[in-house]
Amino acid sequence: MPATEFELIRRHLSQLGSRRDDVLLGVGDDAALLLPAAGEVLALCVDTLVAGVHFPQDAPAASIGHKALAVNLSDLAAMGARPAWATLSLTVPAAEEAWIADFAKGFGDLARYHGISLVGGDLTRGPLSVSVQAAGFVPRGRALTRRGARPGDAVCVSGTLGDAALGLHLWRDGRAELDEETRWLVERLHRPTPRVSLGIALRDCATAAVDLSDGLAQDLGHILDASGVGAQLDVDRLPLSMALQHHSAAEDHLRQTLGGGDDYELCFTVPRSCLHKLDAIASKVGVQITRIGTIQPDGGLELVHADRSPARLDHPGYTHFGAAD
Amino acid sequence: MPATEFELIRRHLSQLGSRRDDVLLGVGDDAALLLPAAGEVLALCVDTLVAGVHFPQDAPAASIGHKALAVNLSDLAAMGARPAWATLSLTVPAAEEAWIADFAKGFGDLARYHGISLVGGDLTRGPLSVSVQAAGFVPRGRALTRRGARPGDAVCVSGTLGDAALGLHLWRDGRAELDEETRWLVERLHRPTPRVSLGIALRDCATAAVDLSDGLAQDLGHILDASGVGAQLDVDRLPLSMALQHHSAAEDHLRQTLGGGDDYELCFTVPRSCLHKLDAIASKVGVQITRIGTIQPDGGLELVHADRSPARLDHPGYTHFGAAD
Repeated sequence: MPATEFELIRRHLSQLGSRRDDVLLGVGDDAALLLPAAGEVLALCVDTLVAGVHFPQDAPAASIGHKALAVNLSDLAAMGARPAWATLSLTVPAAEEAWIADFAKGFGDLARYHGISLVGGDLTRGPLSVSVQAAGFVPRGRALTRRGARPGDAVCVSGTLGDAALGLHLWRDGRAELDEETRWLVERLHRPTPRVSLGIALRDCATAAVDLSDGLAQDLGHILDASGVGAQLDVDRLPLSMALQHHSAAEDHLRQTLGGGDDYELCFTVPRSCLHKLDAIASKVGVQITRIGTIQPDGGLELVHADRSPARLDHPGYTHFGAAD
Repeated sequence: MPATEFELIRRHLSQLGSRRDDVLLGVGDDAALLLPAAGEVLALCVDTLVAGVHFPQDAPAASIGHKALAVNLSDLAAMGARPAWATLSLTVPAAEEAWIADFAKGFGDLARYHGISLVGGDLTRGPLSVSVQAAGFVPRGRALTRRGARPGDAVCVSGTLGDAALGLHLWRDGRAELDEETRWLVERLHRPTPRVSLGIALRDCATAAVDLSDGLAQDLGHILDASGVGAQLDVDRLPLSMALQHHSAAEDHLRQTLGGGDDYELCFTVPRSCLHKLDAIASKVGVQITRIGTIQPDGGLELVHADRSPARLDHPGYTHFGAAD
């Protein structure tokens, strides 16, 4: 007799992540009971990953579990929030216990790494999709939003760009196992690293931040729209991994870095007076930070080369619906 | 040119529900920024509805929007929590703007009625499903859980049972429009009424509570398991609507009331010393309360008739997976 949903939840999904003193009641009742951090602001986000849209149908279950949580932690990172709790809605076509156990491993390992607790969720039968909600805290008045970029601020990104887009290409072509670099590129797709410590460290100096899920051009566009400014980007400064440079042609790099989704790096703006802090932050949190441009009073997103000659991007980024898809 | 996901969210999903002073930043950034009620406990729940599993594929969009929020408010009600915020993950096969507008109307009307605000979410392409998270507050130490039922407590339910199960039957048979009663039964399926005020009123007297989503027998079983007790139910006291009595045979009533899902009534236990409060609560919150049995020291769920002769249920309730499905 197959296990019921309750039994599967009890076995695999009821104790994921860290134990926390602020969880009065976790998985197993109608709702979790939680103690918010006194005097702080609650940051709350949700992101859904659908098989065939946000991850390949045949991606490893543990990677799907990791990624479903990671993309939400990335959202909290972009607010400068310290993650605390998560809920999970997992919809699966059938109750394959081994798959669910692997999924739980990927989710749970990342949750424990960040000291967060899975406090609720449900397990449902249907087409494979995962919806995760994450909650975290940030001291009042210190959250990062998309609204604060000002003319003259430097535009920066963490890590390297375009790896996940190339990783997807390699995965689809069956070239994921070509060498160590291709495996790393595919890992960048399947197991993104949310920049949680960076987001927290940026509370003191960033004027705006966004996480990169749909491609730099589009996501930076959200900062520009929300802040009512433009930006000039030096496309020759966009940070490329060596793996990407080895495994894709130079003429594809601009499309991959500006239009490729799933990077889950942070893009943020800092006043020039704070630029001197970034080296220390980068080495403290262990991630590369690259200054790629400057906020302008207006004019949308302007792409230039190092010699200031104009550059051009044909593919503006990833959207699920509409003409740009 | 079809609208992008961002445009659809901006038009239909960015301002749903009430404006609240505790929402510092709502839809439109990487996460919402919220001010938790000082000194209170946060109740957090999530429930996903999948087309073809939790609602008929052809259910009206406004009803789906209503129900997706209602089932979560029902979870909060079962904790005695006062709802505050919700997030929404909506996955739709195509960006049909009229459908999304109708969905938003159903969701938004219920949100406004309860004074809650939609603070975040995403819109994704994929097989139709809706995942909603709801957050509310309850004073510390006063939340209702499934754990507190004690031998001798009365077992009570709100409203009437089995209407939604019969409504689903009528809907599938194309008999929804037969008369005013069948329309009401189908509304009980499509637009359940979360018992929010009742849950709050019960903080003072209930020892345990659960909301009825999978059928009374199964959901009361959660209270019995969590509290380590049994219960004797008088099946002749189970509250039946007149519509159900008119439109289904007497021999089906036990299966419909004990095994039928989607009631979204509350089942709760109260000490005998508190029974005298229930009439006043029922008239204050405007919902019928019926005492249907008594908590026993052990013995699982025992069904008896008014004359104490044993009654029998063949179908234990709804589960998404496993033998009982």
